[in-house]
Amino acid sequence: MAREIRYGMVGGHNKAFIGDVHRKALQFDPRSALVAGCFSTRETLNQETGKTYDLDPDRVYPDYKTMAKAEAAREDGIDFVVIVTPNITHYEIAKCFLEAGINVFCEKPLCFTVAQAEELEAIVKSTGLLFGVGYSYTGYTMSKVMKEMIAEGKIGKVIAVNAEYVQGWLLDILDPDSKNDMSLAVWRTDPVISGITNCVGDLGTHIENYVSYLTGLKIHRLLATRDKYNQPLELNANIIVEYDNGAHGAYWCSQIAEGHCNGFVVRVYGDKGALEWMQEDPEVVRYTPKGEAMRLIHRGTPAIHEKAGAFARIPSGHPEGLFVAFANIHREFLNAVDAKKHGKDYSCFDFPTISDGVMGVKFIHAVVDSADGGNQWVTIK
Amino acid sequence: MAREIRYGMVGGHNKAFIGDVHRKALQFDPRSALVAGCFSTRETLNQETGKTYDLDPDRVYPDYKTMAKAEAAREDGIDFVVIVTPNITHYEIAKCFLEAGINVFCEKPLCFTVAQAEELEAIVKSTGLLFGVGYSYTGYTMSKVMKEMIAEGKIGKVIAVNAEYVQGWLLDILDPDSKNDMSLAVWRTDPVISGITNCVGDLGTHIENYVSYLTGLKIHRLLATRDKYNQPLELNANIIVEYDNGAHGAYWCSQIAEGHCNGFVVRVYGDKGALEWMQEDPEVVRYTPKGEAMRLIHRGTPAIHEKAGAFARIPSGHPEGLFVAFANIHREFLNAVDAKKHGKDYSCFDFPTISDGVMGVKFIHAVVDSADGGNQWVTIK
Amino acid sequence: MAREIRYGMVGGHNKAFIGDVHRKALQFDPRSALVAGCFSTRETLNQETGKTYDLDPDRVYPDYKTMAKAEAAREDGIDFVVIVTPNITHYEIAKCFLEAGINVFCEKPLCFTVAQAEELEAIVKSTGLLFGVGYSYTGYTMSKVMKEMIAEGKIGKVIAVNAEYVQGWLLDILDPDSKNDMSLAVWRTDPVISGITNCVGDLGTHIENYVSYLTGLKIHRLLATRDKYNQPLELNANIIVEYDNGAHGAYWCSQIAEGHCNGFVVRVYGDKGALEWMQEDPEVVRYTPKGEAMRLIHRGTPAIHEKAGAFARIPSGHPEGLFVAFANIHREFLNAVDAKKHGKDYSCFDFPTISDGVMGVKFIHAVVDSADGGNQWVTIK
Amino acid sequence: MAREIRYGMVGGHNKAFIGDVHRKALQFDPRSALVAGCFSTRETLNQETGKTYDLDPDRVYPDYKTMAKAEAAREDGIDFVVIVTPNITHYEIAKCFLEAGINVFCEKPLCFTVAQAEELEAIVKSTGLLFGVGYSYTGYTMSKVMKEMIAEGKIGKVIAVNAEYVQGWLLDILDPDSKNDMSLAVWRTDPVISGITNCVGDLGTHIENYVSYLTGLKIHRLLATRDKYNQPLELNANIIVEYDNGAHGAYWCSQIAEGHCNGFVVRVYGDKGALEWMQEDPEVVRYTPKGEAMRLIHRGTPAIHEKAGAFARIPSGHPEGLFVAFANIHREFLNAVDAKKHGKDYSCFDFPTISDGVMGVKFIHAVVDSADGGNQWVTIK
Repeated sequence: MAREIRYGMVGGHNKAFIGDVHRKALQFDPRSALVAGCFSTRETLNQETGKTYDLDPDRVYPDYKTMAKAEAAREDGIDFVVIVTPNITHYEIAKCFLEAGINVFCEKPLCFTVAQAEELEAIVKSTGLLFGVGYSYTGYTMSKVMKEMIAEGKIGKVIAVNAEYVQGWLLDILDPDSKNDMSLAVWRTDPVISGITNCVGDLGTHIENYVSYLTGLKIHRLLATRDKYNQPLELNANIIVEYDNGAHGAYWCSQIAEGHCNGFVVRVYGDKGALEWMQEDPEVVRYTPKGEAMRLIHRGTPAIHEKAGAFARIPSGHPEGLFVAFANIHREFLNAVDAKKHGKDYSCFDFPTISDGVMGVKFIHAVVDSADGGNQWVTIK
Repeated sequence: MAREIRYGMVGGHNKAFIGDVHRKALQFDPRSALVAGCFSTRETLNQETGKTYDLDPDRVYPDYKTMAKAEAAREDGIDFVVIVTPNITHYEIAKCFLEAGINVFCEKPLCFTVAQAEELEAIVKSTGLLFGVGYSYTGYTMSKVMKEMIAEGKIGKVIAVNAEYVQGWLLDILDPDSKNDMSLAVWRTDPVISGITNCVGDLGTHIENYVSYLTGLKIHRLLATRDKYNQPLELNANIIVEYDNGAHGAYWCSQIAEGHCNGFVVRVYGDKGALEWMQEDPEVVRYTPKGEAMRLIHRGTPAIHEKAGAFARIPSGHPEGLFVAFANIHREFLNAVDAKKHGKDYSCFDFPTISDGVMGVKFIHAVVDSADGGNQWVTIK
Repeated sequence: MAREIRYGMVGGHNKAFIGDVHRKALQFDPRSALVAGCFSTRETLNQETGKTYDLDPDRVYPDYKTMAKAEAAREDGIDFVVIVTPNITHYEIAKCFLEAGINVFCEKPLCFTVAQAEELEAIVKSTGLLFGVGYSYTGYTMSKVMKEMIAEGKIGKVIAVNAEYVQGWLLDILDPDSKNDMSLAVWRTDPVISGITNCVGDLGTHIENYVSYLTGLKIHRLLATRDKYNQPLELNANIIVEYDNGAHGAYWCSQIAEGHCNGFVVRVYGDKGALEWMQEDPEVVRYTPKGEAMRLIHRGTPAIHEKAGAFARIPSGHPEGLFVAFANIHREFLNAVDAKKHGKDYSCFDFPTISDGVMGVKFIHAVVDSADGGNQWVTIK
Repeated sequence: MAREIRYGMVGGHNKAFIGDVHRKALQFDPRSALVAGCFSTRETLNQETGKTYDLDPDRVYPDYKTMAKAEAAREDGIDFVVIVTPNITHYEIAKCFLEAGINVFCEKPLCFTVAQAEELEAIVKSTGLLFGVGYSYTGYTMSKVMKEMIAEGKIGKVIAVNAEYVQGWLLDILDPDSKNDMSLAVWRTDPVISGITNCVGDLGTHIENYVSYLTGLKIHRLLATRDKYNQPLELNANIIVEYDNGAHGAYWCSQIAEGHCNGFVVRVYGDKGALEWMQEDPEVVRYTPKGEAMRLIHRGTPAIHEKAGAFARIPSGHPEGLFVAFANIHREFLNAVDAKKHGKDYSCFDFPTISDGVMGVKFIHAVVDSADGGNQWVTIK
């Protein structure tokens, strides 16, 4: 069954970042094979990337439309496409492949508007195609451990949440005298490319998705502030959310919080205990049962249940890292693709779907609506 | 100059908690002497406490009014009184001693209403009496180090704040089946004794005071939610504040956040760097200059400036603890009392004053007004 | 019973360090009263210190021999003396007070030679006088919690120990070009004042005493290296110990380990679990039962047993600090003095005794004998 | 240049652990291709593994001798072989491939005896073949950062080292009543399979190699204890080493230290500063320049120099994990293989070589000689 599941990629040329992470993560599973691509609109770079991965030159396409059409027509065409292009193009590319009957795995955020998101969702529902979205942090083994613990009632009913996703790398943008090259950062703060948000879309949506994944709670309404510091888009945002069970949570996302590299921290408080997890220390969950001492639960130890533990690849104490988190997402997606291909039930796998993508877009819009409209409650439908 | 500054205490009998912390902290300074008290309305306990501290029985008073009058009349009367009674009585006792011409050091919160607070402030201003308030966390050496660093511009202009003061010890109140004795907790959730708030008054005001102390920023307006979980008063609150410089901060206080003992954490982000401090690890400041590696700055090391460093009592690495934080507050208060007594300028000492107390009461009321009034902005005048 | 237990002090003038820590710690207990002293051989400083503590000038003595004689003769003479002079004088002063029939609390190390130590021990045994030694870290509440947990079998039989006490503050001594004033450091490396060791006597003996206190294990033999880096005495030492139960431990002490303030860390491994404690984070014990997740046990929480927990003064999460550790040692010593004074059994109190002091001196000598004699095993009798 | 460097594997069937880590790490580099193997002596498992990786069935060999001969004979034969079999077979397999003229990458420990190790080294030297050894922790980006910092003089001359590699997973072996299945553990404590050591060979050699890699120091002599706890081989060992520059270090390795997953911690102290690194938190180096505050240096930040930083794959704060450490080792090994293949200088790449392997075997033997021979100094030649 080696290399039986064929995939293509749009975006992700040799000099890009996230496409390569997906390729390496997919290589963790020997069933997968990269066989087609449209890696760049710069044709030389496109071809070079194809060569790096030993692709048949005929399957290195000049544009994604040609690729979708050609691959759909081949008997040995790709089983799914990975979309790792700039955010602004996600919608059209995803739609094109869906309409060609090809399963899609798309980086987050799904797209720019709620209407686009709901349109894609409608296509997915009507066609039965698979659609994965790149909320990769849920792929960490310990994310699955926590989800399982909460489902088992280990912390009881959730009564409060505090989560943050903070970075400091864009602080220098605020300094008119800086001599650092911030060109990499500029697109993030450019509404044409990034859409209506910067840090809320880049970081805040991860919080929304992750808390929802862990707890099963949905945000009923939220209120927010966002801080632009004289830039076109926000670099800092505070959000108070109210879940459908009535509890409140506080979310903070920032790119100007010096001292943080990629500080994604989630803390969930229930009436029977609490859980804490830090993305930069992803192998450990801090669990405190009510009235007892805090436990540090490590991946790969007897404290981990079988089901979630099955995602672990190497013994405890050997950091698996982000590639394995991506690989776990993709393993489940490959399982689903494989099941669908062989006519089996493919509804039960554990990866972020189009619904997660739609919720992410709704969240972004609710935050902006509240922040720009007097910081009052905005309900998410 | 031994035992030259005489003080009395109202409240703080042998079985009470915070009065004893004040006594021990004042003993750190050999200038101070406890010479009078009205420690309890239970006379036996009152007398016993007086004996424990070797007081002249004539100066162990049955009620605070008698005490204020008698001490004011003595030539060797007390220089100041420490008030450590339940919150509901602070106002009347403080007023009584002020009117008797005696300096006051009062536990926080200052009193119940803004009107009471402003009345006390007016008396202080018109009489020139000294009035300290027990916001003790500003007494830690590293609090003073951070204040100094911010004043020197080490982190530039403050652009974001994130602070929390969270505990888990009241979680059990929510469990109707609990067999634990929560009687100690009950008064905190009783509006008759605690006033209009529980955790906002107990914990949230520390955040307000501390951030203001460090940064010099004042809160212009705030919006808040508070969660009562079917109890009379809130056990959890989220607050977004807007400072007078336009920056935003997020404050979280809670008594149901399992896994936290006394988790007071303050993080201040500027356009030139960031600072972080944790009350449970009070000897260290985490300082990150823009674009550089985080530094762990320890009390008592060469990284500490002379002025703030002078508050340290023992070498770095030997935890000073909360008693020293209280002792630092009291040393400055004693310096002021001493200066006033000898006719010197007493306006320049570093302890929380009546103005801090007034601001605390205003903050509490603004939070409740917002939380109970649709979670909209409430301006603090 | 206020101020009923009278004590005097030898050493500890106003400009010295450790004497003041003892005074403040003793003030935590209202039974104690400083009533006599010989604080310095510099008479002006001696008198000034006496005035600071409001002593009767007749009881501020010019030399310790006069003091011992005079206090022994008074009906209201001191119940015990605290000796906080340079190490070289401990033996003669302690002996003088013992011979005058006065209980002694002496800073560590007890004295210079094993013969001196055993002589003092013999006097203590024959007279029934109390003798405390300043191994203060055993006074932390969590030290007592761990001792109790080990006694209860929580970690089973001890099979390995790893402990270190490391500082970096003397590193600069090694730099011939340094412009820092290291005069404070010089005496520590001067054999005339410090004796045959520097860091082993200053730091290593704490490890020896603390592990012995926690586990009840005695060192059967040890081997060691010590590093002098061209100084008269060692600044770094590695020691492998073999306990009487056959298990091995590794001890490391250093004053040139940059990055450490006062890094005293003890880890004890048993066949049923493990314990870890760090002096710079003294409120927490890390406890791992065999095959389970690590627990962080905090002072003042329900996880703490009643007996050890009774040493805690303030709620969990409020750092007690080193003064309380000293105060706990002295509370037990005061209990013993009080019991003896009233003719009760005084053999059951929890403070470091003359035996601990003797063992400390033996340990120092064994380390030096091994380190200077080919790094072979030296048995401690 | 895709898949241009062909490799084979001996050992590493589908149910084994470390072979898969090597395959995944090699897949991080698109130049590499797995094309041949002898994955297991169980033929069915051998064939299945070949199919998983889509190998030509002709190149899935029944035994390693056949494989070496056949691959050496093919024009498109493998460029190198990865040996991931039980330790006892390393020597003969490595020798066989070397003699067939094929480069070798062999898991550690290299072999059982110093004579074997030196024989392999002699073959490597005389043939000019490449020989990598799996000391993978040196592959972490931050390992390279520290090596560079030390080489640049950031901590001056090394004057002390303290390092440990401790685990707790074998503690249960000591419990005769345990019901856990420890069968996985049994071979480690079986001298027939593991040779003369257990934890010293498995863990201790990593310390030896890593410290040597960072500092360039060689161990001149060492003394050691090892603890068997009634098992055939040791589960705990303490080692004092003396480097060729005269400094001392303390190494501790253990498999019975409950509370540790894979606790490899290295601390290097110099006369100008200190460095600390923990394998379970591999993205951070703790660096303290003399007399200054400790810095937390994160992978991927401006604090990292260009050369070492080039090993990083993803932005700071996104944990790379162990697979990337392995991938970094293999990237350098692939660079060397590629250079050799194209007739270029292949002497300058950064991976553990046969010399590291030889030193590891010498270290193991010295520890056992000292531990079993009275714990005296044993010189390493």
